[in-house]
Amino acid sequence: MESKTNDLLNLIRSRRSVRNFVYKKIDNQVIKEIIDCGRWAPSGRNNQPWKVQIVSHPTVKRMIAENTEYGGIIESAFLNLVVFLDLDRGYDRVKDILAMGAFIQNILLAVHAKGLGAVWIGEILKNKEKICEIFKFSPDKYELMGVITVGIIDESLEKKEERKRRPLDEFIDWY
Amino acid sequence: MESKTNDLLNLIRSRRSVRNFVYKKIDNQVIKEIIDCGRWAPSGRNNQPWKVQIVSHPTVKRMIAENTEYGGIIESAFLNLVVFLDLDRGYDRVKDILAMGAFIQNILLAVHAKGLGAVWIGEILKNKEKICEIFKFSPDKYELMGVITVGIIDESLEKKEERKRRPLDEFIDWY
Repeated sequence: MESKTNDLLNLIRSRRSVRNFVYKKIDNQVIKEIIDCGRWAPSGRNNQPWKVQIVSHPTVKRMIAENTEYGGIIESAFLNLVVFLDLDRGYDRVKDILAMGAFIQNILLAVHAKGLGAVWIGEILKNKEKICEIFKFSPDKYELMGVITVGIIDESLEKKEERKRRPLDEFIDWY
Repeated sequence: MESKTNDLLNLIRSRRSVRNFVYKKIDNQVIKEIIDCGRWAPSGRNNQPWKVQIVSHPTVKRMIAENTEYGGIIESAFLNLVVFLDLDRGYDRVKDILAMGAFIQNILLAVHAKGLGAVWIGEILKNKEKICEIFKFSPDKYELMGVITVGIIDESLEKKEERKRRPLDEFIDWY
C-alpha cells in the first residue's frame, strides 16, 4: 500500500511538459482511455462542461498549427486534443474554468501514466475564434481552453531540465 | 509496468467527493506532502499563482464555516485547505484559473492516494470577500478559488453512490 501511494505521488511529481515527439500512431483505444480520465474530474454541480476534438489528421493539424507560434510542436506529434469549454453547460465562469483545469490535468497525468508525453499549449488562446471556425463551432457555444499535444517521447531530443517550482513555504500559512 | 499504469489510472477514476469524516489529527508531514503535489501542476508561463491557508484551528474553521451552507462538513473534518489565486502573480485570467483547477486536482488526487477523503467546496465563493477578511487578505490581491475539506473517511457513514458522468462519445469528435 505504501509503495502504491508513493507511485501515485511520484506520477504527479514527475509529470513534465514534453515537446519532442516520435511521429508514430497512438491506438484509438489508448486515446479513449486517456480522455476517459478527464471525465472523472470534479465539476461544480457536476456540470461536466467539456468538449474535446481529437485531431490526428495532418490537414486539420496544419490548420490548428497556423494559429500558434508552437505550430511545429503540434504538427510533429501524432495527436492533438483541442479542449473547449461548453458554454451552454456552464453555470459559473470561475467554477467552470476550474473544472476545465482539473479535466486537463487528469488528461496530462493519464498521458504520463501511459508513458507518453504531452504539452499543454495555452498561447493559442489568442486565436480562439479561429480555432472555433476550423470545427464550425460558434464562439458563443464553445470557448477554447487549450490544445494538448500528445505523442511518443523522443528521448534523444528531450532535455531533462530541472523543473522549477516555488518552495512550499512561500505560498502556505498554518492556522 | 502495465499494472503500475493501471493503478495510476484507477486512482484518477476512483477519486470521489467524501463528506463524512472521523475527527482525528492528520500529521503536518502528510499535509505538506499533499500540498506539495499541487506545486507540480502546470501553469501558464510557469507563474504558479497559488496561495493556500492550511486551517485546522477550530475557531478559524468556525469562521469559514459560517460562510457556506456546507459549514457542517468544514467543521467536521480535521483539515481545510483554503485555496486562493494570487492575483499579483496572474497574467491571464482564464489561464490562471485553469492552472488553479490543475493545482486543486493534484491535491484531490494526492488526498485520495493517501487513503484520505476530501470534498471541494465551491459554493462558498459567493462569500469570497468575507473569507479574505478572515485572513486579512485584500480581495484585490487574493481571490478565493475554493475550500478543500480533508479528513479521515468515516466509512460507516460514507455512501458509495454511483458517480454519474457523461459518456465519452457525448463530448468527443474524431478528426
